[in-house]
Amino acid sequence: MESYTVCQLQREMRYEGFLLIRSAEKRKDSKGSDYVDMNLTDRTGEINCKIWNWDPEAAAPEAGQPIKVRGTVQEYNGRLQLRVEKWRLAAEGDPVDMNALVPCAPRKPEEMMQEIEDTLESFENEELKVLTIGMLDLAGERLKWFPAAQRMHHAERSGLLHHTTDMLHLAKGLLEIYPWLNRDLLLAGVIIHDLGKIEEMKADRTGNVTDYTRDGQLLGHLVRGITNLNRVAEEKGVTGESLVLLEHMLLSHHGESEFGSPKPPMFAEAEALHWIDIMDARMNTMKTATDKTPAGAFSEKIFSLDRRVYHPEMNS
Amino acid sequence: MESYTVCQLQREMRYEGFLLIRSAEKRKDSKGSDYVDMNLTDRTGEINCKIWNWDPEAAAPEAGQPIKVRGTVQEYNGRLQLRVEKWRLAAEGDPVDMNALVPCAPRKPEEMMQEIEDTLESFENEELKVLTIGMLDLAGERLKWFPAAQRMHHAERSGLLHHTTDMLHLAKGLLEIYPWLNRDLLLAGVIIHDLGKIEEMKADRTGNVTDYTRDGQLLGHLVRGITNLNRVAEEKGVTGESLVLLEHMLLSHHGESEFGSPKPPMFAEAEALHWIDIMDARMNTMKTATDKTPAGAFSEKIFSLDRRVYHPEMNS
Amino acid sequence: MESYTVCQLQREMRYEGFLLIRSAEKRKDSKGSDYVDMNLTDRTGEINCKIWNWDPEAAAPEAGQPIKVRGTVQEYNGRLQLRVEKWRLAAEGDPVDMNALVPCAPRKPEEMMQEIEDTLESFENEELKVLTIGMLDLAGERLKWFPAAQRMHHAERSGLLHHTTDMLHLAKGLLEIYPWLNRDLLLAGVIIHDLGKIEEMKADRTGNVTDYTRDGQLLGHLVRGITNLNRVAEEKGVTGESLVLLEHMLLSHHGESEFGSPKPPMFAEAEALHWIDIMDARMNTMKTATDKTPAGAFSEKIFSLDRRVYHPEMNS
Amino acid sequence: MESYTVCQLQREMRYEGFLLIRSAEKRKDSKGSDYVDMNLTDRTGEINCKIWNWDPEAAAPEAGQPIKVRGTVQEYNGRLQLRVEKWRLAAEGDPVDMNALVPCAPRKPEEMMQEIEDTLESFENEELKVLTIGMLDLAGERLKWFPAAQRMHHAERSGLLHHTTDMLHLAKGLLEIYPWLNRDLLLAGVIIHDLGKIEEMKADRTGNVTDYTRDGQLLGHLVRGITNLNRVAEEKGVTGESLVLLEHMLLSHHGESEFGSPKPPMFAEAEALHWIDIMDARMNTMKTATDKTPAGAFSEKIFSLDRRVYHPEMNS
Amino acid sequence: MESYTVCQLQREMRYEGFLLIRSAEKRKDSKGSDYVDMNLTDRTGEINCKIWNWDPEAAAPEAGQPIKVRGTVQEYNGRLQLRVEKWRLAAEGDPVDMNALVPCAPRKPEEMMQEIEDTLESFENEELKVLTIGMLDLAGERLKWFPAAQRMHHAERSGLLHHTTDMLHLAKGLLEIYPWLNRDLLLAGVIIHDLGKIEEMKADRTGNVTDYTRDGQLLGHLVRGITNLNRVAEEKGVTGESLVLLEHMLLSHHGESEFGSPKPPMFAEAEALHWIDIMDARMNTMKTATDKTPAGAFSEKIFSLDRRVYHPEMNS
Amino acid sequence: MESYTVCQLQREMRYEGFLLIRSAEKRKDSKGSDYVDMNLTDRTGEINCKIWNWDPEAAAPEAGQPIKVRGTVQEYNGRLQLRVEKWRLAAEGDPVDMNALVPCAPRKPEEMMQEIEDTLESFENEELKVLTIGMLDLAGERLKWFPAAQRMHHAERSGLLHHTTDMLHLAKGLLEIYPWLNRDLLLAGVIIHDLGKIEEMKADRTGNVTDYTRDGQLLGHLVRGITNLNRVAEEKGVTGESLVLLEHMLLSHHGESEFGSPKPPMFAEAEALHWIDIMDARMNTMKTATDKTPAGAFSEKIFSLDRRVYHPEMNS
Repeated sequence: MESYTVCQLQREMRYEGFLLIRSAEKRKDSKGSDYVDMNLTDRTGEINCKIWNWDPEAAAPEAGQPIKVRGTVQEYNGRLQLRVEKWRLAAEGDPVDMNALVPCAPRKPEEMMQEIEDTLESFENEELKVLTIGMLDLAGERLKWFPAAQRMHHAERSGLLHHTTDMLHLAKGLLEIYPWLNRDLLLAGVIIHDLGKIEEMKADRTGNVTDYTRDGQLLGHLVRGITNLNRVAEEKGVTGESLVLLEHMLLSHHGESEFGSPKPPMFAEAEALHWIDIMDARMNTMKTATDKTPAGAFSEKIFSLDRRVYHPEMNS
Repeated sequence: MESYTVCQLQREMRYEGFLLIRSAEKRKDSKGSDYVDMNLTDRTGEINCKIWNWDPEAAAPEAGQPIKVRGTVQEYNGRLQLRVEKWRLAAEGDPVDMNALVPCAPRKPEEMMQEIEDTLESFENEELKVLTIGMLDLAGERLKWFPAAQRMHHAERSGLLHHTTDMLHLAKGLLEIYPWLNRDLLLAGVIIHDLGKIEEMKADRTGNVTDYTRDGQLLGHLVRGITNLNRVAEEKGVTGESLVLLEHMLLSHHGESEFGSPKPPMFAEAEALHWIDIMDARMNTMKTATDKTPAGAFSEKIFSLDRRVYHPEMNS
Repeated sequence: MESYTVCQLQREMRYEGFLLIRSAEKRKDSKGSDYVDMNLTDRTGEINCKIWNWDPEAAAPEAGQPIKVRGTVQEYNGRLQLRVEKWRLAAEGDPVDMNALVPCAPRKPEEMMQEIEDTLESFENEELKVLTIGMLDLAGERLKWFPAAQRMHHAERSGLLHHTTDMLHLAKGLLEIYPWLNRDLLLAGVIIHDLGKIEEMKADRTGNVTDYTRDGQLLGHLVRGITNLNRVAEEKGVTGESLVLLEHMLLSHHGESEFGSPKPPMFAEAEALHWIDIMDARMNTMKTATDKTPAGAFSEKIFSLDRRVYHPEMNS
Repeated sequence: MESYTVCQLQREMRYEGFLLIRSAEKRKDSKGSDYVDMNLTDRTGEINCKIWNWDPEAAAPEAGQPIKVRGTVQEYNGRLQLRVEKWRLAAEGDPVDMNALVPCAPRKPEEMMQEIEDTLESFENEELKVLTIGMLDLAGERLKWFPAAQRMHHAERSGLLHHTTDMLHLAKGLLEIYPWLNRDLLLAGVIIHDLGKIEEMKADRTGNVTDYTRDGQLLGHLVRGITNLNRVAEEKGVTGESLVLLEHMLLSHHGESEFGSPKPPMFAEAEALHWIDIMDARMNTMKTATDKTPAGAFSEKIFSLDRRVYHPEMNS
Repeated sequence: MESYTVCQLQREMRYEGFLLIRSAEKRKDSKGSDYVDMNLTDRTGEINCKIWNWDPEAAAPEAGQPIKVRGTVQEYNGRLQLRVEKWRLAAEGDPVDMNALVPCAPRKPEEMMQEIEDTLESFENEELKVLTIGMLDLAGERLKWFPAAQRMHHAERSGLLHHTTDMLHLAKGLLEIYPWLNRDLLLAGVIIHDLGKIEEMKADRTGNVTDYTRDGQLLGHLVRGITNLNRVAEEKGVTGESLVLLEHMLLSHHGESEFGSPKPPMFAEAEALHWIDIMDARMNTMKTATDKTPAGAFSEKIFSLDRRVYHPEMNS
Repeated sequence: MESYTVCQLQREMRYEGFLLIRSAEKRKDSKGSDYVDMNLTDRTGEINCKIWNWDPEAAAPEAGQPIKVRGTVQEYNGRLQLRVEKWRLAAEGDPVDMNALVPCAPRKPEEMMQEIEDTLESFENEELKVLTIGMLDLAGERLKWFPAAQRMHHAERSGLLHHTTDMLHLAKGLLEIYPWLNRDLLLAGVIIHDLGKIEEMKADRTGNVTDYTRDGQLLGHLVRGITNLNRVAEEKGVTGESLVLLEHMLLSHHGESEFGSPKPPMFAEAEALHWIDIMDARMNTMKTATDKTPAGAFSEKIFSLDRRVYHPEMNS
């Protein structure tokens, strides 16, 4: 059976493939039997399906998971619907192409995690190593799929890892040009600077942010990152200057009070972290805007840049 | 013997009384004997004295303590000096009038501490009570003499208590007008909101701030207050919403990012805390400026207000 | 007959009660006879009615008045309509519950007026007393129902009195904590500070603001308040410093040029007035926003605060 | 006898001429006799003189007046002093060249006053004429010598008239290009817009501003101008729209709240007044700065412009 | 035949007259024959017409031209349409009243051009004359119809000339009041200051701006004006100070970095140019807003002024 | 003879070595003979010397050159002076250590120039190559020693090359992380972005900036860079999009109007250039501030950063 994207589906087509459960709700049909009403999506669109005769004891499947479905496309009240014949939740080892379902980072999360761990291996400063590992442990599995933002930059599955590892590359380039910087301090700052976002936003495994958390709104990821770091330090018994330096790097990485940092960066590694962060965010935003704009034309106004973006003809 | 202030001293006068050691340094005289060179102050001025034949094993007295001295005023190289005949550090029970030596809060620290404790007694919310007591314990004895600032408002011995208890009065007035406010939450916020200043500034027992600390400069008292609060919560096992509400009150009490709060107050008690804080600070600044200005005249420009202040004739 | 709110009305119900005339227009029916088309409201909704055979000589009733109506609810073109059998304008003494018809201040205007008069009684400064009474006289009856704003805070019937009397309570609390403030000056400032609003906005007796006046837009209530105060002073022959002090308090009570005060508060009573004003406005806005938000949730962004507001779970 | 400026005086020279009394104080000499110690100035410098044997009953002459002195220059304690032989205060008709004594407007005050009066003659709108005349009457004689500022622009004797008449020329030019503007309204606005300065600053007859007044600091010339205008209107019985239009023009002529106008100009004549005002002020500042700077060079930073000014070579 | 505006047209009317082609597109009818679908406009509205049996070889007429049409008004699908019997593009000499078709400057472009040329004749400085003429030559014919803006001020056919010549009048008025200004420099600055707009915006011969150009968005008219000026200077061999003075006047004429001028005006002629420019723009905006507002009423908020505008009753 | 720095010199010492002529002036001694009064400096201090019997025909040596002197240190009026026995201007090949005389970039200018040329060799885009070479040719020899600023960052001999080559390294690192960027465009932007500074500031061969030029003050290096680029383009016949892209990169590289860029960066390479520029400037400033501050301490407030800088103890 050929493979289609959702936007290619037409009446009477046969379909088999992996889609994402965007929402799923258990309901009762006119005879009182349970069924599940689901909206399934890939990056191109959304289609509804019903699964009849649902086990009254079983809950509806959780949103945010890939599902394998087979069936026929039908039209009902002018809208397409998938009549499902067979389905199961995707299992480990299934050939699910997540990038076809939602925007994903260009590299695999496992590969990016490995890169962070290799970087940690090379640390010479034990305190910084211990604190950074502790922060990664607190973040746990969620780091694998967490996005870096709801909309701004790296709003994609594993976007937080994408942003972090690109920043690691930038930082390593900087360390060659400015060898007087403290290597471990800068790299530790890069790795932990946005981990607080995991408690600031609610995101599912597809990298989709549905809302901000209570703590995210009342404190923000900078301050929650700092209290987490203190918890790690207390647990691990770290009391040296490295702790307050990392606290300051977390607090100051937005650069100015206007952007949420009550203190500006006050030593070189904090300053470097701030610029690396903004540079990677901006390059990501610029790429997204340029990709959507034909060569020789200007984009609409990009909200986070407060300007229109030009796609040079020369580059194409 | 009559009692004089430092600015009243003249050549050949006999003097006996309590002064404050502003600085004290051990030196060697021309014959190689040790002596101590001290500058003694009260609120009206400063006079130098030497104490000869100092025990070579003993350190110079620490600055910031009251000392009792007896001696004769002499002139040396055109400046007055006290030739000391007898001296000792002030002991508990001595009739030292601290307010004659440095600017002091108008009430006794013990009385203000008692007021805070009485307020705590009346708390119904156990979590808020435990957290607030924990924060006071961390502050410890230093709270008794700590000023609220280096220069701005309540820059005086026990200024932090002065500011806190005046704010408690304001808060209690508010609770009558807006009885829907959560009483314990607001009062807890008032009591702990500035305790982080104790780790932000270096001050001696006279309430004199000599500098900001490393942590004070890198993090500020808002964020250090929050990490202290987390430490207390972990120790006491407090995990309910009261913790994050107090964290937010600490973080937002300066009102705007421009003034150091990355989050604005987001619930009514946080909002109230912010305005109570600014109102008490401003009334203190206004009083100080008005007291220094003759009726019917304008002060110089007051730095923290960015304006001149008028002393109405009508009021005098 | 049972009492219903407008949103409870259904076809065929009998209704008798007091409603508010939101609008009333005289028209001609198909036979050329006059009738009046009225929209009647309470706080829950709006219903249309026609009163047939209107006296051609009589004007339609003025909007903004309570009316007593009796009739039956009918449906016409899918919308409910009241077929009126009997009606009359509400008269003094009628048991009209204004608070059921429009948002009202929590206290009776007469009670609040009395409080202001009692405060005035206690003034020792004759000039301040005369000026304040003169300003209240200029405001006249309108003060009884005037709101404090179109939308921001205290946008309710008698909201201006509500705001003013809550501020009086705050001011009296302050005078206990800062007894060096000039009592009469501060209280006079509180009473007159917003009276200019009565000439700045057009409001009907229900406290509903329909527009700003020409003078309101060209000058604002601060400046119009000052010219009114000068007129009072000239009439009463007041020439002392109290006049210019009150002028300054009117001019500076918004605190900063950005918010409409070309001069910042330059003496302590003016400074106190500014903070009391902002504190009461903010507490009112906070209460309104919190009341509309379920416990544990965040409100939408509140325009006048430029932020979302949290309703703590702990408080409920 | 030749005529000298103060900076040309040398020991033993004979001097006769008009100087300005900058300060004059009555004192007693070593024998107990009264004398007057005066500092006399022209635009080039200052010299001290004593007038011995002063009548004990007579006050010292008032500062700010021209005086005719004759005497010899002497040296006393290394500084030059004038030994006065004969003196009298300048009388009407004396050939005093005020411009040699202090900076003066380039035209005679009488001539400028006449121009304003001629302009008033041509008014067709009676209300505007009456209000403008009333404002000029309130200003009275002081308008003849009053400067427009302490330091900024037109800080010179009769500077207020200089500024006003140059603005009248600008306004008349505008009326030709934009003939739809209301002529009388614009011209009335020009004439009265800065009259409030006469109550805002303390200036002597030489155009020297020594200080701001209490009302000037608490209210400013915009608001005091408006209250004066109301007083005039009440006296003259003017109640039409012209009054509120002029009030608005006074209030808005600084253009933005940041520069002291709580309302921006809201009709065309108010807008025109604002730009005419700023244009004349700036051209005056530019001329002063350029005159002090050699061709082909840059001035120091000009405070009121926040920039350096270039004197083009081409222009010289 | 009587003359109608588009908004006066009704079914069955005969029409003959000049209209503007707003858009014209070649299409095929149901039989496969070519026809042209056009929208024709005057200032009052728009009407559609089809011209059947179009020559398949011929292109559709270009938008932005006047066309003469004769035909009958019909209704099709509820909208009016013109059934065209005869048409031709307007030719030179036709009595086309452009001002009836689009907003036009109040004077003829030829007359305004002549005024500029007469002004140039009177220049004494050869370099300034040569540079200004060169800039006009670069602008060429487009200057005749180019508007000054898309929406802000002088958004009309020949608006750029209208703005420039009104500014010339203002400048000449200024030169009488401030005769020390360099006449030729100021006038040259006025003439060339906005010529860069011709390369910044895309406009058709009706003065309608459809978009900004690539260079307009990437550089703006200030900088493109400067590079054009340099090109002229190189061609004409001008190397004196006049070149850099004019460059600075172009660069600084928006006054502040916030409004696009990286340098503020640094000599008097540049300062004058800036204020003349803003004054003329504002008076035009004020007139447009006032004309649309009834006397005694306020306009909606005017975007470019960020305020509502009042139309005084007194003026009408 | 041993080698001394200027601050090590003492009375009666013999000195021989290379110093820098800071200033040199020809004067006449009491007998009417010519001599030259020179101030000689290295990085540690300044010493005066006179060279007697100067050839009346010869000019004084130009400031900014190294000179070889031999002589004895003497004291005259309490200040040290060098009595010169022999001297000559330094010649090519002399072992002059410029870095001992003034702050210098850490690498040789020739080496940095070579790196730029090698980069240019690798360009594939001919237009960009031609434009960049043309800009370097305009800069000429001065590029070798020109500083990047008077005080801010890279205020050192060859500082402009230092800044440019460090930015090239950053850019090349970026191109690996974001390979979709146009390599030649970004590198060309880096090379030419600050070349306009050579006409903006007056600097001597030691990298010392004495003043800003007329064009620098009236136009700035962004705009002068653009006009130079246009001149090059016209000469070389470059008319493609590369020209306007480079113009935009010059214009926008300060990022915001507040910092002198009337347009923000509007494509990705312009955005990258801006952040690379700011990052290198800031890292240089941070290094300078940290180097001057002891470990564990805070610097004074750094003007260009508007904050104090901390030197971590951990790093030392």
